[in-house]
Amino acid sequence: MQLTAWSIGDMNGIGPEIILKSFRRISQSGSRPLVTGSFKALDYYNKLLGLDVHLQQVHSPTEACSLPEGILPVLSTKEPCTLPNPGTVDPDSGRIALSAISKAVELCLEGSCSAMVTAPIHKEAIAAAGCHHNGHTGYIARLCGSGSPIMLFHDPVTGLNVALATIHEPLSSVPGLIRDMDMGAFVTRLHQSLQQDFAIRNPRIALLGLNPHASDGGVMGTEEQDFLIPAIEQLSEHIDIQGPFAADGFFGARRYTSFDVTLAMYHDQGLLPFKVLAFDTGVNVTLGLPIVRTSPDHGTSFDIAGSGKASPESFTCAAQLADRIALNRNNRRNHP
Amino acid sequence: MQLTAWSIGDMNGIGPEIILKSFRRISQSGSRPLVTGSFKALDYYNKLLGLDVHLQQVHSPTEACSLPEGILPVLSTKEPCTLPNPGTVDPDSGRIALSAISKAVELCLEGSCSAMVTAPIHKEAIAAAGCHHNGHTGYIARLCGSGSPIMLFHDPVTGLNVALATIHEPLSSVPGLIRDMDMGAFVTRLHQSLQQDFAIRNPRIALLGLNPHASDGGVMGTEEQDFLIPAIEQLSEHIDIQGPFAADGFFGARRYTSFDVTLAMYHDQGLLPFKVLAFDTGVNVTLGLPIVRTSPDHGTSFDIAGSGKASPESFTCAAQLADRIALNRNNRRNHP
Repeated sequence: MQLTAWSIGDMNGIGPEIILKSFRRISQSGSRPLVTGSFKALDYYNKLLGLDVHLQQVHSPTEACSLPEGILPVLSTKEPCTLPNPGTVDPDSGRIALSAISKAVELCLEGSCSAMVTAPIHKEAIAAAGCHHNGHTGYIARLCGSGSPIMLFHDPVTGLNVALATIHEPLSSVPGLIRDMDMGAFVTRLHQSLQQDFAIRNPRIALLGLNPHASDGGVMGTEEQDFLIPAIEQLSEHIDIQGPFAADGFFGARRYTSFDVTLAMYHDQGLLPFKVLAFDTGVNVTLGLPIVRTSPDHGTSFDIAGSGKASPESFTCAAQLADRIALNRNNRRNHP
Repeated sequence: MQLTAWSIGDMNGIGPEIILKSFRRISQSGSRPLVTGSFKALDYYNKLLGLDVHLQQVHSPTEACSLPEGILPVLSTKEPCTLPNPGTVDPDSGRIALSAISKAVELCLEGSCSAMVTAPIHKEAIAAAGCHHNGHTGYIARLCGSGSPIMLFHDPVTGLNVALATIHEPLSSVPGLIRDMDMGAFVTRLHQSLQQDFAIRNPRIALLGLNPHASDGGVMGTEEQDFLIPAIEQLSEHIDIQGPFAADGFFGARRYTSFDVTLAMYHDQGLLPFKVLAFDTGVNVTLGLPIVRTSPDHGTSFDIAGSGKASPESFTCAAQLADRIALNRNNRRNHP
């Protein structure tokens, strides 16, 4: 029996609700979820929203495995002083979210869980809890002792995969970061991750230009000619990579359907088309970690927390993808 | 009888084909097209592709108006030395394209035509013809003696309108241009154009942030707090404007449906979602000129020129929108 750790996220957001709803939807045939975080918070939303999930507090992964099917095991890492208060920033909620993440990472690193799926956290609650980390993903990477992971967005409906060369950076910093980064090493890591995690033997990679029209031969910007084209030429000796493509025409003409992954140079270049094409089912995958980690492609949605309106679609897709990646990694270990 | 000038574009591209096909599709009840450019080139594609359009060379707008319905009048501005050679860069073709544009502008400025629709030109052919202008739109603006026009993309199917604050600029120049521009004056001009050209009494404007997540309160970039938010606050005293929005979430959650126009800060931020949402029917409109000008949302497509595969969809939509704008401007003049 494989276990997947589901970290609860911010208990005042929609995390507990989408965890409970996803558990009701996911088939019990695959791996089994083990929620890390607060039992009290899950129990609160379960009753508040009448979701009727059978929850059971456990003290170890082994105990979780021994439960009958249809019961959702919860490993309590920290309990709140008061009941959840949907839609509010609370340091207590931030502390619970952090403890849930570090327990999930620990379970994955020690091999008790094969993957982790993280419900959304709230930046301000985390900061109020005294943690000034560089985002959810950066925090997990640090716990794993890893360097910079690669952020990839996956949509199971269209099959679209979009990776980002730079992530949460001011737009003014992006051209300099692209000039300074080792694109060859980055693409090679992306290529390896697609082989390992998505079981694609020869991943086809599309690289987008940084400038409009991919600079139109140097008329609008020089990064394509100075950096991207030479990097692609060198990489294409051993990797199936094409580009740099004019981003608007590339997505408009649906050219992404001919590639396994599209590498965008910056946040909005990748996420604007992704969110238009993959609304509701998009999943965030962190590549390049020793552990498997996915998350839904949305935030805590404080505005609808506690109302029962949250869609579990993206979290469910994230959980399914986490299982698929864990299986692919396992197969690769057994049949290298 | 109103006339609309259709400039032929590059005769070695798909321009003549989409003009002929659009003429066959457009109802004869509205304004009547008058093609400017080469009669010989149109005639060539008409026969090559068996389009069976009745062409007639005319020498004045008055003569065009006197023709029976179902005949496409062509005002020859320059004829090629040889027949068109689809898919090739040719200075002769560039010269014809330029003469077609300047004649169309002249007809609009003098009031003989109520609008112009431009088929695509080829940058290299224009340059080979000795013209080093700043793009199709910049060339037309110069002929009109106008300052910087505003580029707006319109999709008649979804109703989506996207305007660009900066256009064909290297990405590294965009933050500086946004900091230096007079956003208040720009939005005010956009607002007036929507009132005049789209007959929207109180246009609702959405302004996108420059940085990812609209900087998340200054965490990723400062242009929102330093420039965009103050500009919006000042503008909102007399204009219905909201923002700055995180661009990815804005389009992902379809928030553009609540606004008459979305103002993107740079090319790919506007055109990535636009081309995904408005494939095939997108139209480019040039606001802020004394004349009405629209164009299809694609280039010369040298790869399929002469093959008969070109879709007239975008050109047809551009022609219909040009008529609509001309009508709105006329109504406004008569009932201010």
